[in-house]
Amino acid sequence: MFQINENYQKLPGSYLFSTIAKKVAAFTQENPEKSIIRLGIGDVTQPLAPAITDAMHKAVDEMGSAETFHGYAPDLGYEFLRKAIAENDYRARGCDIAEDEIFVSDGAKSDSANIQEIFAAESRIAVCDPVYPVYVDSNVMAGRTGTYDAKTERWSDVIYMPCTAENGFVPEFPKETPDLIYLCLPNNPTGTTLTRDQLQKWVDYANQAGAVILYDGAYEAYISEADVAHSIYECKGAKTCAIELKSFSKNAGFTGVRLGYTVVPKELKCNGISLNGMWARRHGTKFNGAPYIVQRAGEAVYSAEGKAQLKEQVAYYMKNAAVIKQGLKECGYTVFGGVNAPYIWLKTPGGMTSWEFFDHLLEKAGVVGTPGSGFGPSGEGYFRLTAFGSYENTAAAVERIKKL
Amino acid sequence: MFQINENYQKLPGSYLFSTIAKKVAAFTQENPEKSIIRLGIGDVTQPLAPAITDAMHKAVDEMGSAETFHGYAPDLGYEFLRKAIAENDYRARGCDIAEDEIFVSDGAKSDSANIQEIFAAESRIAVCDPVYPVYVDSNVMAGRTGTYDAKTERWSDVIYMPCTAENGFVPEFPKETPDLIYLCLPNNPTGTTLTRDQLQKWVDYANQAGAVILYDGAYEAYISEADVAHSIYECKGAKTCAIELKSFSKNAGFTGVRLGYTVVPKELKCNGISLNGMWARRHGTKFNGAPYIVQRAGEAVYSAEGKAQLKEQVAYYMKNAAVIKQGLKECGYTVFGGVNAPYIWLKTPGGMTSWEFFDHLLEKAGVVGTPGSGFGPSGEGYFRLTAFGSYENTAAAVERIKKL
Repeated sequence: MFQINENYQKLPGSYLFSTIAKKVAAFTQENPEKSIIRLGIGDVTQPLAPAITDAMHKAVDEMGSAETFHGYAPDLGYEFLRKAIAENDYRARGCDIAEDEIFVSDGAKSDSANIQEIFAAESRIAVCDPVYPVYVDSNVMAGRTGTYDAKTERWSDVIYMPCTAENGFVPEFPKETPDLIYLCLPNNPTGTTLTRDQLQKWVDYANQAGAVILYDGAYEAYISEADVAHSIYECKGAKTCAIELKSFSKNAGFTGVRLGYTVVPKELKCNGISLNGMWARRHGTKFNGAPYIVQRAGEAVYSAEGKAQLKEQVAYYMKNAAVIKQGLKECGYTVFGGVNAPYIWLKTPGGMTSWEFFDHLLEKAGVVGTPGSGFGPSGEGYFRLTAFGSYENTAAAVERIKKL
Repeated sequence: MFQINENYQKLPGSYLFSTIAKKVAAFTQENPEKSIIRLGIGDVTQPLAPAITDAMHKAVDEMGSAETFHGYAPDLGYEFLRKAIAENDYRARGCDIAEDEIFVSDGAKSDSANIQEIFAAESRIAVCDPVYPVYVDSNVMAGRTGTYDAKTERWSDVIYMPCTAENGFVPEFPKETPDLIYLCLPNNPTGTTLTRDQLQKWVDYANQAGAVILYDGAYEAYISEADVAHSIYECKGAKTCAIELKSFSKNAGFTGVRLGYTVVPKELKCNGISLNGMWARRHGTKFNGAPYIVQRAGEAVYSAEGKAQLKEQVAYYMKNAAVIKQGLKECGYTVFGGVNAPYIWLKTPGGMTSWEFFDHLLEKAGVVGTPGSGFGPSGEGYFRLTAFGSYENTAAAVERIKKL
């Protein structure tokens, strides 16, 4: 008789955002007259920029003509897109990343879930706490996390690095040496980040410890401060210890378009074996490329018009972030983030738990946020609001919260 | 010091089609004046049908307007697409498959590579020989295949089921009991298939043995004979033993569009645990949906116009298949397939090995095919030609082969 991967049975409850969706659906069914404002999931709301839809229409026409039709894409992604990425996201910032170190994918969620596959089953992972659930859950499925203690909400074999108001959301180097270190900067969910100097210390640490940093830069476009790195490869020595995961979801509104990329430097090696070659092999065996139309859309992100239009889009969301942060401060909340990231991380008032505040906010204000505890035990007592709503909804949500 | 997944080091050489691409690139560089006709990789050449490009243009417009913009897709795929699939591919054929048993993905390659994850690490897999390389390679990466013997080209822990002219390309039930049985019908690479009655015997076998059939139906649209099942769920008892993987690549030309789906029936259980729930959890954790635009394109496949246009497209390729089969027969080749599948499987002439014939065909005729041995040891002495070229190229390739 066949047997299942028993690691799946260890996963506690369902995926955070599915749980929220179910709670909201139940509330809406019971209260059909109440309007709901969703500042929970990190999903964008602004339409695709004209430069992008123009490129997509053109690509659809190409796909409809035999002379310009495109079948299977090259394994790593189209040259035109990898070139645009290498030039704009790396060389323009002084980072020496080559086209064949860039792997185009269907998004950073897939990549951040799949990247663990090329590492040994015994690898010890370290994550910030709170953290994007995918990093841990994908390692649970792979059997790397030991046993789950429902009381502490911790896995026995995961190294947690608390990031709270107490340490200014700067993780400390772990006492045990990890093999893989997940860092998301600017951070989801806290909206905080590290300075370039602080990041350099992590790069130095990883090189000394023989660890790999899995660097999720999905929110890079929201960086507003000069001393924050836009890529981990701005740090010296990062090419021998870091893999960078990037998304088009937040800088270009591609949550429903699906495009991302991962940088695996050729210098990143284990006993002489290049991880670049391993990831290439995974891509070639288990993936068949992002759609041609979507890769053309990605190219348009780097056009002059695309850049101008997306700069406005990012500014639009960051205006929302300022409105939320200011509004919450005015009514006495302790708030973090929102300067280099589209997330506001707040302390729940009156000692409420994160889920208590979730219910409170949903029932009393009709506003959906994300409970901090859903991102890890150190997120308990915190709550995340996103700046990805429309300005009107965001302002209305803040007014409702003020009236609580 | 971090360590890699050592299973990757066990993989012999690189992925078949990458090797072919490199060989052809080298030949073209040395012989820039020679024209090459590619009947190797199973990539389509006909443009997307108008019903599909119309749907995509409309969806792009929706994505460009705030009122109709779509962000993250539902985990399983959009209801509109799952409904069209359930109605057209299943209920219309008398198969009782519900919408929530259908999981929309970025293609059958990803799904067929990823599906092994939900099974135990110790699972014993059985594959036809020759076979689509992804089934075996994805299990090599997961450490299920034991050691590789370069002499026999076999993995110690894989159960091979030879499919050759001698047994009429009908695999025999294996002597050892497998946990997972990969069946691709109509078959890639041989172009042959089983009758509905023959398939029913496999379903009965799997239910008795406690095995799961991973049924790859990517070529279903090419079935022309009445006694061939269009879905494994046409067989009694398949819902307790089979997962079906489907692609839009071959029936609708989506190789560069990327769309597929997997059916995991709720009745398929292991010790009471539903595999449907496990696959849903994987989808929710490691994938973020196929693009909205692509899912609308998929919906158009099932519209009246889409169906009519794609019927013509399939007929176009099957005319190519007939041209290849007839032409090769005329010059004395022994040929198989091409009736229910767009692949022609031929015996190499004069005792040539598959790769010898590959070089011969490339150098003497400028025609690129796929060496049968690249699909497994029992493919040695065979060669695959695909019907996915243009009619003109296909006819020209046959003329060149006739002159050899």
